Amino acid sequence: MLCFVQTDAALAPETADLLLGVTVKRSFDRISVDGQLSTNDTVILQCSGESGVRVEPESDDEVRLGEALDHLLRRLALDMVRDGEGSERIGRVVVRGGHPPAVEHAARAVANSPLVKTALHGGDPNWGRIAQAVGGALVDTAPLALDIAIEGVQVCVAGSAVPFDAEALTAAVGGPEVEYVIGLPGDGHETEVFFSDLGHGYVTINADYTT
Amino acid sequence: MLCFVQTDAALAPETADLLLGVTVKRSFDRISVDGQLSTNDTVILQCSGESGVRVEPESDDEVRLGEALDHLLRRLALDMVRDGEGSERIGRVVVRGGHPPAVEHAARAVANSPLVKTALHGGDPNWGRIAQAVGGALVDTAPLALDIAIEGVQVCVAGSAVPFDAEALTAAVGGPEVEYVIGLPGDGHETEVFFSDLGHGYVTINADYTT
Repeated sequence: MLCFVQTDAALAPETADLLLGVTVKRSFDRISVDGQLSTNDTVILQCSGESGVRVEPESDDEVRLGEALDHLLRRLALDMVRDGEGSERIGRVVVRGGHPPAVEHAARAVANSPLVKTALHGGDPNWGRIAQAVGGALVDTAPLALDIAIEGVQVCVAGSAVPFDAEALTAAVGGPEVEYVIGLPGDGHETEVFFSDLGHGYVTINADYTT
Repeated sequence: MLCFVQTDAALAPETADLLLGVTVKRSFDRISVDGQLSTNDTVILQCSGESGVRVEPESDDEVRLGEALDHLLRRLALDMVRDGEGSERIGRVVVRGGHPPAVEHAARAVANSPLVKTALHGGDPNWGRIAQAVGGALVDTAPLALDIAIEGVQVCVAGSAVPFDAEALTAAVGGPEVEYVIGLPGDGHETEVFFSDLGHGYVTINADYTT
């Protein structure tokens, strides 16, 4: 990935660094196509100052520029997931809990699980694969009192299956975007990862030719 | 996975525990189909004692039984990889180096990389995907002086590409089993992981039906 953002605003390098750092954490750092990083993954913010509009630190202009940059980078990041190799559906996993590393590990594990990604591709309302991915990431936590909701349909509470409308869930996971909300014990921390599905297109792009 | 091994030898529970623990570490703990663990992954060794042959601790019989169990479990484990969902080729990654966690992380990263697994599936001699997987697993190590050989063809030495016979490599990676040997800085530690490739069969099995 090579991402270049240009503005004609006039920013001090420290201001540009700050805004880019915060907004990259909320965008490109929260997506995964296949979990693989590249040494060329790069985001560059270029500020020509051509407009003569100075953006001072801690000013309203800085807040507004930050919001605009945030909006833009999140949109670009989501486009990358949507345009991921052979991707047809996009998943969003939200994990809440009391332990920041656990929250992050669980979110990444779900986003990068080939079983979750193929289920997303096939529109399969298989929530056992979500529970398995979380459990596999958080070893030595069994029994794990996790909650799982898919597209607002609660399927698991405190580690136990609960009755749900299977038809409604099947319809919901057949849409272009599917949201998984996972609750771990404790609270105070939340993260999200947007991810591509895994379908035949991914295999075709990455296996059926020689690079 | 549910694996049951039965013998009519007579073993003390401690002896059976010891032999099974060691041999599982060398077999089922060294394979990956898609990197996903299941709570039902289980290996059970049952010893009826029916033969009346007692296997005493630290005896030659214990060594021989251990060797037989090792041979059997490795064969079963390899059969699982070979029979992995839609698998057509099997990869073996060997990693050597001075830092045990780095050696293990690198091996798992290569074995579970969708890019490596699709390249294996397609018979693609793309060694950049190996380097990327290792680099992605060992952050803050760049530049990383790693060596890579694929089926005995050296493609990278101390982090730099070296000339190699591209035709010989392409022919080698088209076979049913492909071996990747990776050298990290330092020495004294070595691990291996056997893994399935990632092809259309995997997607079909895991996306094209509802579970």
